[in-house]
Amino acid sequence: MPEQPVTATSPEHPTHWVLTLSCPDRPGIVHAVTGVLAAHDGNITESQQFGSPTSGRFFLRVQVASGADRAELESALAPVAEQFDMTWSLDVVGRAVPTVIMVSTAAHCLNDLLFRQRSGALPIDVVAVVGNHEALRPLAEFYGVPFHHVPVTTATKADAEARLLGIVEESGAELVVLARYMQILSDELCTALSGRVINIHHSFLPSFKGARPYHQAHDRGVKLIGATSHYVTGDLDEGPIIEQEVERVDHTRHPSDLVGIGQDVEARTLARAVRWHAEHRVLLDGKRTVVFR
Amino acid sequence: MPEQPVTATSPEHPTHWVLTLSCPDRPGIVHAVTGVLAAHDGNITESQQFGSPTSGRFFLRVQVASGADRAELESALAPVAEQFDMTWSLDVVGRAVPTVIMVSTAAHCLNDLLFRQRSGALPIDVVAVVGNHEALRPLAEFYGVPFHHVPVTTATKADAEARLLGIVEESGAELVVLARYMQILSDELCTALSGRVINIHHSFLPSFKGARPYHQAHDRGVKLIGATSHYVTGDLDEGPIIEQEVERVDHTRHPSDLVGIGQDVEARTLARAVRWHAEHRVLLDGKRTVVFR
Amino acid sequence: MPEQPVTATSPEHPTHWVLTLSCPDRPGIVHAVTGVLAAHDGNITESQQFGSPTSGRFFLRVQVASGADRAELESALAPVAEQFDMTWSLDVVGRAVPTVIMVSTAAHCLNDLLFRQRSGALPIDVVAVVGNHEALRPLAEFYGVPFHHVPVTTATKADAEARLLGIVEESGAELVVLARYMQILSDELCTALSGRVINIHHSFLPSFKGARPYHQAHDRGVKLIGATSHYVTGDLDEGPIIEQEVERVDHTRHPSDLVGIGQDVEARTLARAVRWHAEHRVLLDGKRTVVFR
Amino acid sequence: MPEQPVTATSPEHPTHWVLTLSCPDRPGIVHAVTGVLAAHDGNITESQQFGSPTSGRFFLRVQVASGADRAELESALAPVAEQFDMTWSLDVVGRAVPTVIMVSTAAHCLNDLLFRQRSGALPIDVVAVVGNHEALRPLAEFYGVPFHHVPVTTATKADAEARLLGIVEESGAELVVLARYMQILSDELCTALSGRVINIHHSFLPSFKGARPYHQAHDRGVKLIGATSHYVTGDLDEGPIIEQEVERVDHTRHPSDLVGIGQDVEARTLARAVRWHAEHRVLLDGKRTVVFR
Repeated sequence: MPEQPVTATSPEHPTHWVLTLSCPDRPGIVHAVTGVLAAHDGNITESQQFGSPTSGRFFLRVQVASGADRAELESALAPVAEQFDMTWSLDVVGRAVPTVIMVSTAAHCLNDLLFRQRSGALPIDVVAVVGNHEALRPLAEFYGVPFHHVPVTTATKADAEARLLGIVEESGAELVVLARYMQILSDELCTALSGRVINIHHSFLPSFKGARPYHQAHDRGVKLIGATSHYVTGDLDEGPIIEQEVERVDHTRHPSDLVGIGQDVEARTLARAVRWHAEHRVLLDGKRTVVFR
Repeated sequence: MPEQPVTATSPEHPTHWVLTLSCPDRPGIVHAVTGVLAAHDGNITESQQFGSPTSGRFFLRVQVASGADRAELESALAPVAEQFDMTWSLDVVGRAVPTVIMVSTAAHCLNDLLFRQRSGALPIDVVAVVGNHEALRPLAEFYGVPFHHVPVTTATKADAEARLLGIVEESGAELVVLARYMQILSDELCTALSGRVINIHHSFLPSFKGARPYHQAHDRGVKLIGATSHYVTGDLDEGPIIEQEVERVDHTRHPSDLVGIGQDVEARTLARAVRWHAEHRVLLDGKRTVVFR
Repeated sequence: MPEQPVTATSPEHPTHWVLTLSCPDRPGIVHAVTGVLAAHDGNITESQQFGSPTSGRFFLRVQVASGADRAELESALAPVAEQFDMTWSLDVVGRAVPTVIMVSTAAHCLNDLLFRQRSGALPIDVVAVVGNHEALRPLAEFYGVPFHHVPVTTATKADAEARLLGIVEESGAELVVLARYMQILSDELCTALSGRVINIHHSFLPSFKGARPYHQAHDRGVKLIGATSHYVTGDLDEGPIIEQEVERVDHTRHPSDLVGIGQDVEARTLARAVRWHAEHRVLLDGKRTVVFR
Repeated sequence: MPEQPVTATSPEHPTHWVLTLSCPDRPGIVHAVTGVLAAHDGNITESQQFGSPTSGRFFLRVQVASGADRAELESALAPVAEQFDMTWSLDVVGRAVPTVIMVSTAAHCLNDLLFRQRSGALPIDVVAVVGNHEALRPLAEFYGVPFHHVPVTTATKADAEARLLGIVEESGAELVVLARYMQILSDELCTALSGRVINIHHSFLPSFKGARPYHQAHDRGVKLIGATSHYVTGDLDEGPIIEQEVERVDHTRHPSDLVGIGQDVEARTLARAVRWHAEHRVLLDGKRTVVFR
């Protein structure tokens, strides 16, 4: 999780905070954390927890309304966090996460994300759209978002990725969404942006990894097609899965039909993954995700 | 919630407890409860909570492994419960809830519940099957469950219900499941067994209340049919909904097809509602339910 | 079904035709129709039929590639149609149906329909957007569609509807889509446009007719919310249902959450209904629809 | 498709026939077939067709009520079948297909199939249950079906398969259902019973082939688990897929939970595949299936 900016609050206007943490599981974690929150007149409005039997780690997500400001909460939570060896983050509920969306030529995911942002259904602030083609510039500009054309060839890939990283850093983006971006990120970039890049793969992973998954699905004669949204790691199509969805198809469907049907599923699946990430509902448990929906 | 029997435990073998409670919402509830649990070396394995904005009530379900016995936990929790004006119950996770299943002639729900109980997928102990017809006696007896034939006519309804209530009381049943039982319970019986009777209605309520819902659905030309499992109250088909499910249908389906398709949905929906009830995952919030799935 | 324009074709370039018909059911219909098509070197690529046991009517939809032109096919089919007392229509597969979309302030359905049209997923040609508010003008204009602001008050309703009817007639629209248009059409307009107006109702009809269905659904504590797309008749929310869809919700959802969740379901449901209508897959069987998906 | 027994019929009582066929696609097939049916006073009640663009084959399934008997229809259809080089079969709608079910120790699929047969939801006649364990004998016998215990070890596999083939032949079974049978059939047996063996695999193929698919699914952190019913070929888990279904899971589920959740999906998926096969709704198009649902 990236650093969160400091948010101003005042005792007169309680802020709605979201606290997420993970740590080795042992008794007393919830009591300790809720003790800190109660001491700051915190009213817990939502709370979810999970003890992972495979990793032995404990995960907690709490929404709490409190008049305390960030500094007070952080200094009160710090000793508890140290005592239990926690990885943790504190944010304001509903804060729009600065986001860069990367695209090629397919518009459906970009259109869906921009529309949801505008209608208030997605707590992100799209600060830039980056395309390796010009095709989606008008759509981005209709929504008032700067569009950067960053073409990629084998020869220019390193430069293009440097420019992308520059855009991310200058724009203050905390999240990068690959919205059917048809280039593979280098290991270096995956590492630099680790945990901050969400991709949509157009198959029900681990089925049909790699290219042309709908054609693979058609060849195999599957009766459901799907999409998978996952964090990007250096290991292609193997990153931790955030969300998956399927749609029924039958023998009458050509591969090109599957592409069309799949677009709906892709857009829905990606939008959910992005929303849950932006709401701090997704925590990493090794190669798996904990999703507090 | 009915009284729970006292369960023996020992410090050497921690018991896995499930605590559920509801009370007027105010700060400090979770901290107070987790404090009691921490003081008894309780390790929380699952916890869910909800503050209802419509009723102003707070709901909590906690699973906790603790070496403390029931008496210790109850006496430690009692002051907190009093302080916050809680309705609460404490049970052992996985205890099979003594259950009476009531049937007429349709076998699908009974078959499903008995099979799930035997395969360990449903924490109930079916202590009796009561039928107003003899048809399902062989099925009950195959699973080793006593079958009581209690026919009902207008003239004998009061006697039949008295006999039913006798069976419930003598068998120690805490739950009554109406598994396509085609008689309407009297207001008196509904009151006597309030919160302990689960019904399956063969429509997506509130659509198609009353008789022959699949025929009503066919007449209206709906594209999805459904089933609704709910607590029984004196107000027919208006009790709090626990679970609903639907299945796609099309114009080719006769009402008799809908009946067949619906049987799958009914059985699944009822099984889920019964399991969640038996696992203390369903709490009442006025006319609505809180379901900690 | 409205009149279809004559489409030019030539023997060298076979046209892909779609023929739909309904008539009283009796033996020999398919053989007679396929005989006409075979006599014109027609290659049937898709065919669906249904004999309705409730109405006694037979329904057929055939897609056929043939070098014959419209006049030849129509004059060859006419005697068969007369013999069997058919209601029938002939169109070119994939022809974009001229469509007027009516809106108020909610953008999700309009955005979805316009995006699908542009990406080629919906065989409609949106010739005008009519809004009783100005809010959605920019969206319509981004897609290059003329926007007409036709405000409606009780006093001006008759004039507004006359203007609407004028827009439909002048634009040559064959279909009117109410994409969350928050005005009730008069009986006169419903009659004038009978079978050509599709609405999206934001509930799983027949549950929660009328206003504020998500609030009704929340009050009743349902576990699934839905949307219904139907032809508009003078009988509000009672027109023939084309498509329905649901989405799971739980106790944590406020009515405002349901509104947001419902928007996705509404847009998807309406898009499917519009596509099936535009592809001549929806035929009326009294108050019910036959949908050849 | 196996040979169908001759079924008696009389002109006074029309029989409801189901005709399925496939052949190289070319114009005139439907007209020729419906001509034969019309000449025998056939009233078509259901008809579905499909031209496969990948294989170039045409597939047809027709239900037709006719007073003609099997011999009359067969001799009238034979010339057409020869003309178009058809593979075809003629059966009586609803005839119960003699079926052998093979099991190991898991009861859920067997219970589901036997219950559906008894309740009339599945047009099969289970003539024998074969188990490599004794565990499911009581369940088979409750439904009045002979149970054969045929244990399998590496040393006895050939003998066991010979015995199995003997049971299939002596019982006149046309279909063999592997209802969580935990032995792999030899290539010889797969060939001998080609197109007549349906398996249920407990994953969403092609994900998680082979053993312990739910553990594989858990390790990968998928958000949906599934089941796949397919024809058995010598190529393990690669046979033509008939039906697939999924169910949502989340991070809280242990592999053992997935097994339990999966049982419902497996039973439903297998029951659908068996029903469609028994109703002659499944036709083979190379490695893919055409399913006329």
